[in-house]
Amino acid sequence: MLNGKRLYDISMPIHEGMQVWKDKADKRPEFRNMNNHDVGQSHETRMLLDAHCGTHLDAPLHMVKGGATIDAIPLTDLIGTARVLDVTDAEESIGAEHLERYDLQEGEWVLLKTRNSLNESNNFDLNFVFLNAEGARYAADRKIRGVGTDALGIERAQPEYPTHRTLMNNGVLILEGLRLAEVPEGTYTLVLAPLKLQGIEAAPARAFLLGEE
Amino acid sequence: MLNGKRLYDISMPIHEGMQVWKDKADKRPEFRNMNNHDVGQSHETRMLLDAHCGTHLDAPLHMVKGGATIDAIPLTDLIGTARVLDVTDAEESIGAEHLERYDLQEGEWVLLKTRNSLNESNNFDLNFVFLNAEGARYAADRKIRGVGTDALGIERAQPEYPTHRTLMNNGVLILEGLRLAEVPEGTYTLVLAPLKLQGIEAAPARAFLLGEE
Repeated sequence: MLNGKRLYDISMPIHEGMQVWKDKADKRPEFRNMNNHDVGQSHETRMLLDAHCGTHLDAPLHMVKGGATIDAIPLTDLIGTARVLDVTDAEESIGAEHLERYDLQEGEWVLLKTRNSLNESNNFDLNFVFLNAEGARYAADRKIRGVGTDALGIERAQPEYPTHRTLMNNGVLILEGLRLAEVPEGTYTLVLAPLKLQGIEAAPARAFLLGEE
Repeated sequence: MLNGKRLYDISMPIHEGMQVWKDKADKRPEFRNMNNHDVGQSHETRMLLDAHCGTHLDAPLHMVKGGATIDAIPLTDLIGTARVLDVTDAEESIGAEHLERYDLQEGEWVLLKTRNSLNESNNFDLNFVFLNAEGARYAADRKIRGVGTDALGIERAQPEYPTHRTLMNNGVLILEGLRLAEVPEGTYTLVLAPLKLQGIEAAPARAFLLGEE
């Protein structure tokens, strides 16, 4: 609780055994202990982290040649009204037919709670539910601010990445790797805080929701 | 501006040329390009980052053997009232005499704006202004929630690290590497969002203030 509002931390815990894209070893975080209290006076860690590790925000450069980098996205775009949509009934992908149930508003964030949220394991689900190209087109037409997903990626198995590219080319932000299992469908205030990385295509982020209680 | 409030991003930009502790090469961030649009269909970066890179939150384990790790600090402790104190007159260190000017309140965050904020270069200032042991004792006695500084460290040149240890042993959180040059003295709402790292002694963070305008 925070000032009478319920706080939901929707960030994925980051550790060496966490789920990573397609279980690839070279995407796994690594924590290197550089000093500790057995050998020195402090405990210090250096990390190897992918920019797409856990909960993270993509910038257009990720999938669009010459696209904007993560530092070009203002914080004011990352704080505001967000709706969590319960689309746990989608089996394979989320299309326009799932989003049409909601009156999506220009400028709001839309967070997709799918059956991915039921996967509490650290294994990557190759068959994760994704936003398909038609769903992305629908979301872009409604001029939403951004879309979030409870999978590490917002699409799979679509050559040329039409979901990413339709969203990015229409100014819709993409937030991946959310943890939404505990969050009921409804309207919240989103606070999305990516690391202030300069010149690259994404950033790991802490994200939370504030809701009425 | 955000809902009529002014937003101050007080996070340090993270890039390979940024200031690092004592200019040590092995603390410098490294961005490794793993894929890009000249050779593939996406741009992807893997990073080497210290847990104490740029703006970051320390956990007790950093300086106290057996101390709590960063994941043990709840988000609710990281969002709340913060006062920015203008102590730019402190030449060497900040002591109780600088803090006594303010009526520090139990549970609030105190952010120290020192002459460090005037250093806009990427070089580490070996003579940075720090919070001395007496200042830390005074802050702990007032039971503040946390203390933030505009240097990469909250102390220097004090054997046995009494500033860190007095604060940590009294439950006062330590936030380092803030950028406060643009922020006037006053009262704000702090939002401090560290990466959700598990089991280690610190985390890089995005931090911002909301103030009346």
